[in-house]
Amino acid sequence: MPAFLALDFGGTKLAAAVIDSRSGRVASRARRSSPGDARRSIEEMLAMGREALDGGAAAGMAEVAGVGISFGGPVDASRQRVRLSHHVPGWENLPLVAEVSSRLGLPTVMDNDANLQALGEWRYGAGQGAGSLLFVNVGTGIGGGIVVDGRLHRGSHGLAGEIGHTVACPEGPICTCGKRGCVEVMAAGPGIARSAQEALAASPGSGVRLRELAGRDPTRVTGEVVFRAAAEGDALAIAVLAEASRHLGIGIANAAAIVDPEVVVVGGGVAKAGELLFGPLRAAARAFSAPLDPEMLRIVPGALGDDANVLGAVALAEQEIR
Amino acid sequence: MPAFLALDFGGTKLAAAVIDSRSGRVASRARRSSPGDARRSIEEMLAMGREALDGGAAAGMAEVAGVGISFGGPVDASRQRVRLSHHVPGWENLPLVAEVSSRLGLPTVMDNDANLQALGEWRYGAGQGAGSLLFVNVGTGIGGGIVVDGRLHRGSHGLAGEIGHTVACPEGPICTCGKRGCVEVMAAGPGIARSAQEALAASPGSGVRLRELAGRDPTRVTGEVVFRAAAEGDALAIAVLAEASRHLGIGIANAAAIVDPEVVVVGGGVAKAGELLFGPLRAAARAFSAPLDPEMLRIVPGALGDDANVLGAVALAEQEIR
Repeated sequence: MPAFLALDFGGTKLAAAVIDSRSGRVASRARRSSPGDARRSIEEMLAMGREALDGGAAAGMAEVAGVGISFGGPVDASRQRVRLSHHVPGWENLPLVAEVSSRLGLPTVMDNDANLQALGEWRYGAGQGAGSLLFVNVGTGIGGGIVVDGRLHRGSHGLAGEIGHTVACPEGPICTCGKRGCVEVMAAGPGIARSAQEALAASPGSGVRLRELAGRDPTRVTGEVVFRAAAEGDALAIAVLAEASRHLGIGIANAAAIVDPEVVVVGGGVAKAGELLFGPLRAAARAFSAPLDPEMLRIVPGALGDDANVLGAVALAEQEIR
Repeated sequence: MPAFLALDFGGTKLAAAVIDSRSGRVASRARRSSPGDARRSIEEMLAMGREALDGGAAAGMAEVAGVGISFGGPVDASRQRVRLSHHVPGWENLPLVAEVSSRLGLPTVMDNDANLQALGEWRYGAGQGAGSLLFVNVGTGIGGGIVVDGRLHRGSHGLAGEIGHTVACPEGPICTCGKRGCVEVMAAGPGIARSAQEALAASPGSGVRLRELAGRDPTRVTGEVVFRAAAEGDALAIAVLAEASRHLGIGIANAAAIVDPEVVVVGGGVAKAGELLFGPLRAAARAFSAPLDPEMLRIVPGALGDDANVLGAVALAEQEIR
């Protein structure tokens, strides 16, 4: 049975799993919080990888053909090195693939987490069988990945699919990247929280339920609190969410006009809000999607949740190893 | 010597040429204005094609391996049919490739003109050897095409690369496609003319040279007149052009964030304006291009002028025939 070891280096957590690449079934798994620097993360992960391999063998997966690594930051896929981590020190230009491969004695491949979420949803999730797929991750940031004919489109500098830093509103607030009105600053979790805080300050009598959920302290409003308030019918929260979804919809419509994907898969924490997000998002994306027939723009939630990148690492390993 | 016949069905003109596919050299060529409907256009073009083949044979190109068709409107590339023409009646769902192939007795391929401009610039022009290329045609409309690893990326519905109908300004004027603030309505020739007319009406004392060039009749201001006035130093024309270029730059930055191309090639009539366009365009595209390192965003003028799509038809034939 073809199986691979997936290693997930996230910003705050590490995970290792042995997975049957035909079904995507997880045979064994280990999870830890990240120990805080690159060197210790690698040692910890190698120990977890060996545990997962032992667990896999115990579960009948004796033959593990290789390793797929998901890295939570920019990766130089052509040289199979980490570029850097925005969260953890010590990762600069680290030849992670070579080290993991030699230490575990297995062929190893790597890509960044957004690309692997895209590939995972294409291979095992909401985009199975699609000729092309645009994946958008909406959480504290907004990332993306593109799959065409079953392969990642990485771009000339490994930076393709950066939908979060396309501009949806040229006069909007300034993004962490320095530009104005990026999709990320308009529609990711922190942007939703900021918009809600501004709306609460501007209309002292409004957002009653939102204020309650934030313990009457507007500085404690987060994206998640806005979603909760909206789900309970708070009109201010619903309006804030609709405006964020509109900008996400513009970004998706723009990206779809360039890529013309068969399906757009939206995953990540914010995407778990369901129809509160997907309703206005689809309406906006379709309103801004001409001359693509709006019916051609199919936008669906991710099916793999937090496992998308881990399963994508297996899909990449399956494609590139042997 | 490998040669192909290229047939160019434009909105207002027809052209046929026999071209050496190794060098891109034109051995013989015929041009006519379009006779106005699909059926007569096809008969006229077949006669022109035979002329060009005879001329090519006389010039030593006896062996023509096939035909590449460039069509000035939406094409169903997978079924090799015309969808329709926005300019000429009678083209709906026409199996043009099958007809040309059987009438001329040569294998035949087809795509739309923007895709073929992209492929032509990649094979013979400003993007030779690039791993990936985004082509943008700026004229009375704005079209585009994408080449990755030497092949056209057509998208799931043949509509990829539609940069003209991405949104650069969600509160902008309404585009012909029905949406607000598309790159096309902000930055193509008619949009530039409209902006200049509005600016002239708003500031009666300004745009002296622009008014002169339009014969003191603001309704006669065209995109070309604005470029001419700007080249002669008219401050209002320069400002209008800078604003249009800024929106084109936002569109290009957004598309580049998705595709991450090695080079962006800008062609078409408006692009002939040179640095008056490319200066503010590059500045805007780089300002809006983070987190792609601005130095990575290489924007160059097309090298093939009006021959880009014809040479692209040859490049496509070279790829797909034999």
